[in-house]
Amino acid sequence: MSALIYCPFPDREAARAAANTLLDRKLIACANLLGEVESIYSWNGERGDSFEIGALFKTSAALLDDAIQCLAEMHPYDTPAIMGWRCVSVSEATAAWLGELDRGG
Amino acid sequence: MSALIYCPFPDREAARAAANTLLDRKLIACANLLGEVESIYSWNGERGDSFEIGALFKTSAALLDDAIQCLAEMHPYDTPAIMGWRCVSVSEATAAWLGELDRGG
Amino acid sequence: MSALIYCPFPDREAARAAANTLLDRKLIACANLLGEVESIYSWNGERGDSFEIGALFKTSAALLDDAIQCLAEMHPYDTPAIMGWRCVSVSEATAAWLGELDRGG
Repeated sequence: MSALIYCPFPDREAARAAANTLLDRKLIACANLLGEVESIYSWNGERGDSFEIGALFKTSAALLDDAIQCLAEMHPYDTPAIMGWRCVSVSEATAAWLGELDRGG
Repeated sequence: MSALIYCPFPDREAARAAANTLLDRKLIACANLLGEVESIYSWNGERGDSFEIGALFKTSAALLDDAIQCLAEMHPYDTPAIMGWRCVSVSEATAAWLGELDRGG
Repeated sequence: MSALIYCPFPDREAARAAANTLLDRKLIACANLLGEVESIYSWNGERGDSFEIGALFKTSAALLDDAIQCLAEMHPYDTPAIMGWRCVSVSEATAAWLGELDRGG
């Protein structure tokens, strides 16, 4: 089974650096930087509003926890928002491609 | 467990208003407005094409239904497309942050 | 239950064509083209970086596999990244709207 991770970054360079590290460690097969997102949030009782770069990471369900752990360790924020979910249905080619990760490819 | 909700809005002001209301009611911890999306759809047998603002909302799995219900009640459309899913894997910091919502924080 | 599919395309025309075909065949009710995404990936041991158009497709859980199969057959890439997941919680209006697909509407 495959999985997706969504995580915003302070800027495009940080998102690219994370993508390349995860690719180097064969924890993902692909990252899609979605572009600028406007974040509206509550933090320590205060309302905040900032612009970030949203990113989606494609991996296998077996590597999901490890990929999130690695992302959390290198993310520039102390409290990054890193959220992953399983994709119960993918195309055959996608399954084969992401399955390569589980074979260390 | 955490959860994400995806929902488009007619414009950025409507998306911001919804985000702030959900934050006020402590039903989400953060909204990411993804920017302009092109929507292509079928409605009452007719093909439609319009531009909207896509938004992702971050919450806990326990609050997912309530957040969607609240969003449906305040959304400017009669038939908004509001879709939520559980995130089986999140970073520790994210789990603690979104877990605050369950403790009414 | 409802479902979402995420899939990037080489350009907007390809994404629009796929959306309209899936709508014609009543396999989705709506597509949201998210706009330009920067893709960073590994392919045959090489690192790649390109710009694509990301797209989300809204369907029912019952049609998810068929929609992905159809998308895979018409996608311009040989190995498209097509990933689908179930949405366990949706608004009543969304459930009714996407449920129409299961009734052939």
